[in-house]
Amino acid sequence: MNLFGTNFRIMTWGESHGKAIGVVIDGVPVGLELTESDIQKELDRRKPGQSNITTTRTETDLVEIVSGVFKGKTTGSPISLIIKNKDVDSSDYEKIKDRYRPGHADYTYNIKYQGFNDYRGGGRSSGRETATRVAAGAIARKLLKTKGIEIFAYVKQIGTIKAINVNFNDIDKNPLRCCDLNAAKKMEEYISALKKEGDSIGCIVEIVIKDCPPGIGEPVFGKLDAKLSYALMSIGAVKAISVGEGFKVVDMKGSENNDQMVQDGFLTNHAGGIVGGISNGQDIVLNIAVKPTASIAKEQKTQNKQGNETTITVSGRHDPCIGPRIVPVAEAMVALVLVNTDLKF
Amino acid sequence: MNLFGTNFRIMTWGESHGKAIGVVIDGVPVGLELTESDIQKELDRRKPGQSNITTTRTETDLVEIVSGVFKGKTTGSPISLIIKNKDVDSSDYEKIKDRYRPGHADYTYNIKYQGFNDYRGGGRSSGRETATRVAAGAIARKLLKTKGIEIFAYVKQIGTIKAINVNFNDIDKNPLRCCDLNAAKKMEEYISALKKEGDSIGCIVEIVIKDCPPGIGEPVFGKLDAKLSYALMSIGAVKAISVGEGFKVVDMKGSENNDQMVQDGFLTNHAGGIVGGISNGQDIVLNIAVKPTASIAKEQKTQNKQGNETTITVSGRHDPCIGPRIVPVAEAMVALVLVNTDLKF
Amino acid sequence: MNLFGTNFRIMTWGESHGKAIGVVIDGVPVGLELTESDIQKELDRRKPGQSNITTTRTETDLVEIVSGVFKGKTTGSPISLIIKNKDVDSSDYEKIKDRYRPGHADYTYNIKYQGFNDYRGGGRSSGRETATRVAAGAIARKLLKTKGIEIFAYVKQIGTIKAINVNFNDIDKNPLRCCDLNAAKKMEEYISALKKEGDSIGCIVEIVIKDCPPGIGEPVFGKLDAKLSYALMSIGAVKAISVGEGFKVVDMKGSENNDQMVQDGFLTNHAGGIVGGISNGQDIVLNIAVKPTASIAKEQKTQNKQGNETTITVSGRHDPCIGPRIVPVAEAMVALVLVNTDLKF
Amino acid sequence: MNLFGTNFRIMTWGESHGKAIGVVIDGVPVGLELTESDIQKELDRRKPGQSNITTTRTETDLVEIVSGVFKGKTTGSPISLIIKNKDVDSSDYEKIKDRYRPGHADYTYNIKYQGFNDYRGGGRSSGRETATRVAAGAIARKLLKTKGIEIFAYVKQIGTIKAINVNFNDIDKNPLRCCDLNAAKKMEEYISALKKEGDSIGCIVEIVIKDCPPGIGEPVFGKLDAKLSYALMSIGAVKAISVGEGFKVVDMKGSENNDQMVQDGFLTNHAGGIVGGISNGQDIVLNIAVKPTASIAKEQKTQNKQGNETTITVSGRHDPCIGPRIVPVAEAMVALVLVNTDLKF
Repeated sequence: MNLFGTNFRIMTWGESHGKAIGVVIDGVPVGLELTESDIQKELDRRKPGQSNITTTRTETDLVEIVSGVFKGKTTGSPISLIIKNKDVDSSDYEKIKDRYRPGHADYTYNIKYQGFNDYRGGGRSSGRETATRVAAGAIARKLLKTKGIEIFAYVKQIGTIKAINVNFNDIDKNPLRCCDLNAAKKMEEYISALKKEGDSIGCIVEIVIKDCPPGIGEPVFGKLDAKLSYALMSIGAVKAISVGEGFKVVDMKGSENNDQMVQDGFLTNHAGGIVGGISNGQDIVLNIAVKPTASIAKEQKTQNKQGNETTITVSGRHDPCIGPRIVPVAEAMVALVLVNTDLKF
Repeated sequence: MNLFGTNFRIMTWGESHGKAIGVVIDGVPVGLELTESDIQKELDRRKPGQSNITTTRTETDLVEIVSGVFKGKTTGSPISLIIKNKDVDSSDYEKIKDRYRPGHADYTYNIKYQGFNDYRGGGRSSGRETATRVAAGAIARKLLKTKGIEIFAYVKQIGTIKAINVNFNDIDKNPLRCCDLNAAKKMEEYISALKKEGDSIGCIVEIVIKDCPPGIGEPVFGKLDAKLSYALMSIGAVKAISVGEGFKVVDMKGSENNDQMVQDGFLTNHAGGIVGGISNGQDIVLNIAVKPTASIAKEQKTQNKQGNETTITVSGRHDPCIGPRIVPVAEAMVALVLVNTDLKF
Repeated sequence: MNLFGTNFRIMTWGESHGKAIGVVIDGVPVGLELTESDIQKELDRRKPGQSNITTTRTETDLVEIVSGVFKGKTTGSPISLIIKNKDVDSSDYEKIKDRYRPGHADYTYNIKYQGFNDYRGGGRSSGRETATRVAAGAIARKLLKTKGIEIFAYVKQIGTIKAINVNFNDIDKNPLRCCDLNAAKKMEEYISALKKEGDSIGCIVEIVIKDCPPGIGEPVFGKLDAKLSYALMSIGAVKAISVGEGFKVVDMKGSENNDQMVQDGFLTNHAGGIVGGISNGQDIVLNIAVKPTASIAKEQKTQNKQGNETTITVSGRHDPCIGPRIVPVAEAMVALVLVNTDLKF
Repeated sequence: MNLFGTNFRIMTWGESHGKAIGVVIDGVPVGLELTESDIQKELDRRKPGQSNITTTRTETDLVEIVSGVFKGKTTGSPISLIIKNKDVDSSDYEKIKDRYRPGHADYTYNIKYQGFNDYRGGGRSSGRETATRVAAGAIARKLLKTKGIEIFAYVKQIGTIKAINVNFNDIDKNPLRCCDLNAAKKMEEYISALKKEGDSIGCIVEIVIKDCPPGIGEPVFGKLDAKLSYALMSIGAVKAISVGEGFKVVDMKGSENNDQMVQDGFLTNHAGGIVGGISNGQDIVLNIAVKPTASIAKEQKTQNKQGNETTITVSGRHDPCIGPRIVPVAEAMVALVLVNTDLKF
């Protein structure tokens, strides 16, 4: 199932080490100004090789608009976007192709696809497919901006290092895409050390939707938080999602958790901007837990495709913490959800 | 959007204080033995008035099969289930109908539906609609059992009281539907006290899927964990979802979180049974955070429909902790997801 | 698959000789005035026993609105409609239950459902299910009227007897629902004669959509004519569909078939109001071929469920020409298509 | 809406005079052998410039498989196919871009897309998009062949010239794709004459599905004939569809139209292989009416985009009868329907 959305439908395609990856976007309203650079600037935030704490694979991730735009504006026809794969090096994968990498989808894909799947670079299970989500999401975000809606995601915690302040302006000023420059510095040091160990670490990414009008989302199976959970959990490394107080509600009383109202509006935002599955006009606040990168240089026990026990060391080129690169992906998925609600464009 | 599922499609209907609630289930395979008591036994686990720690509304929640079953077996035609509302008392609601109940969907529904929605008992936003999910889920569970798949949900934590042991056999032996009888006792005392205060409390419900075969779920937008997150987050009171280690991955290293393999299989199950969105044959383990019941007897500040500040005391008949009654709903939603995967029946 | 529509979704249920039939309608906009009589008046046009040329089964087909309407207006919640089956007489069917009725779905259902289907009265394959389409369609038509769109269907030809004039006002003035009273009279005589023979006859029903605005329908798989064809062909007895000139285009030249334009608009309407799958503002004109009722009193050769040759005489209570009762069904299906286009409500 | 299918989903994209056209196919089972030549051979049957009775635009229509195939077999990942546009000449269109071509979608597109659509060569409304249907259909047909199912389409009538014999082997032996070589010869002469006049003609294409097993298709909105009608009517030039006897049922009696059964099976096939929306194991027989090509050299009256009356002569390069090139498109659409039924692969 490589299809997402009902009104603003996207179908993504492509493998990590194939010729190209891409996405077709069907249902974009007519007359939206759109250039490749609108999309490229978001892809540049996700692309590999941005700093010394990310993978050294250096894809330029240049996007080409192949259809659906005429004289600089969207035509209402499907928009086909293609990104060629350039820096493909499958040699590391050929060596380990018969051994399941722990934490990766090698084992589950091998069972599901009976060995026919393209194993090079993880094939379709690679995080590389998220580039096409970011590309489609860039168009969705442009559309949302016409309604004044903006989405901000940022790294909030890595290991035990937490952001104290949230400053949206700082997010793109540090390679961690952390919302707090002080925390970012500590995170950077921590990750550099981890990299030497050949290990990786998890993190929390927080997403805030600003200026979503009230009334968006539908009962009972079209709840905005349910759709956001689906979309965010569809990102490979995500293992948990929370809205507003999230798991903290477990030891909160009703009298503490309810958002009371006064003349000017709500006194608090424990709900995270969504009640009964419908936006209430406050900031929509989501957190996702991102697991540590599965590819690590440390030796691990595993099985091979013949079912025998063996060991594996995953060299390749990997991010010790995937959080900074998940940030634009999370923003894209949230944008893709919002353009598939009852918001009118 | 009151439709769920692609193969095993359900459409639910009905308001809390209307004539009846119901569900139509389309896509049930032929030849499954099915009686009303198969469904009733699940409904009895969700129905109100089961113990002194739940609401005193005493719906019998008797289900009637109106179509789709002939000579005791499913026919392949849509199954229509109807549950009449009996113990409807809207008097409490008439008094407060112009004031938004904090933590409830009154405000968001009022904006979305421009005041046309049935406000009595929360109308369509009431937890009462979940009875129809349980009814449809009972059929899904029966189908899953033909494949040996079983689902167990239970209360794992209420406030700061945590279950220590997990014993599936104890779940239906205590009114909390807790997996640990000792913890259950403490929870019961705690809730009785809370009830006197007129307050409520949140909880964690854990769900375990046993014997799901490997290979179920699809990349990239058909991931099993993404679909489960959507389904569970569509339950009114749920504010967070985690798979396997969930938010704990934040300070885990790759070397700690990866599930290594040996000859006999996986050494650990940090992933919670799903990798790359596909089941790996281990137990699938999910946690959901359930918010404290919004209806509390304590006075709260709010607005009325005219936009003026006022106060409200929600008397009515409410559960101080919704967890025990969410247990069968969570099981039902998980079952409804599983029958909508690539499992073949 | 008992689900129709994407925005205005309906799920129908019920067997011919079961307890009841019904439909749930999800996605009706809020604030539409709606009473049971709005629906009943359409059902009365489809119900059996209206005249001496239709079946003598005398269902009252009384509809009950069970949810989704509050204080006389739609609430945005799903609308559940139930019609109880009253005049059920399965005795004729028990006698022939092991023999496939020629022209009926007995054989195909038996193969598909492995004998588990409810055979009484044809069960789910009976034309009785179309009552629920008419009920849902009544709401759709009411919604369309708020935009000034109206739908007229009528019998245009029975056997070789053709309507000469088309007068919308005459349609409900004759039991044939023919648009021409003279032709209607001849048709009535013809059918009375046929009835004595124990035979049946086919017909053409024409449907005209008035005042559909231009621009409705979408390329390339959302074409308005494609969606109408799907909807009309889903009616049991329909064997062909045409738009505008239909099969007559086969020996028309481009210079004859093209609709040229002048200052005031189109000179002709060969296209039947739809070009490139999109309405052009002219009348939308559709024709459907309705097969002769399969149930006839004449003896026919057939097989039984054991695969042996035998004969059958289908007594029961049947319409010698199904056209007059298909008229409201065709209107309903067209209405249900239109509320699932990009028309905004 | 450029998405077709539920299990075997395709999303098509591209404009007639853009850079390329293409399709993504999602849901193809793993392990199917697939090469570009499997697809190319079908595209070659549809491509322009095949004979002197078709358009002189000479696209090579070379297809490239960009993803989803590894080591010569399908992987279960989406298959992206791209066909570059080569022989693009927009000069004729620039001259007439402000005038609506009669019989074309210029007027309806202009209203719908508010003038933002790519008008060159008809843009998205051009028959050129059907190349991507043929490409996707080639994969569907390969899959169907693994079940022994084959599809044959052919021109059966052009103007008043009818095929007398149906010989599947002759279809690809004449440029008309007619099933009767004698009729083909007359058709060819007739079209050559028409071409000189600058006019065009309609035709009938018949489609036969061989060896479809019984039991395929679903009541009540998943009927096989309803889905086929939708798919075939989504082809630009199609104005009518019939199953089996089609419009001939109008003056047939039940005793004539019913397909009686004997020991060996059905005595006749008036139903065209589908009863109650479900295949009965006989040949499935469909007819479609194809309108005369709208582009003709004769002068016609029309409006321009400013709403003023004017005239137009459509020179360009066009097929005087589109039938021969619709044949592979019709086969493709039928194949795409069949892989989206309950057939198991």
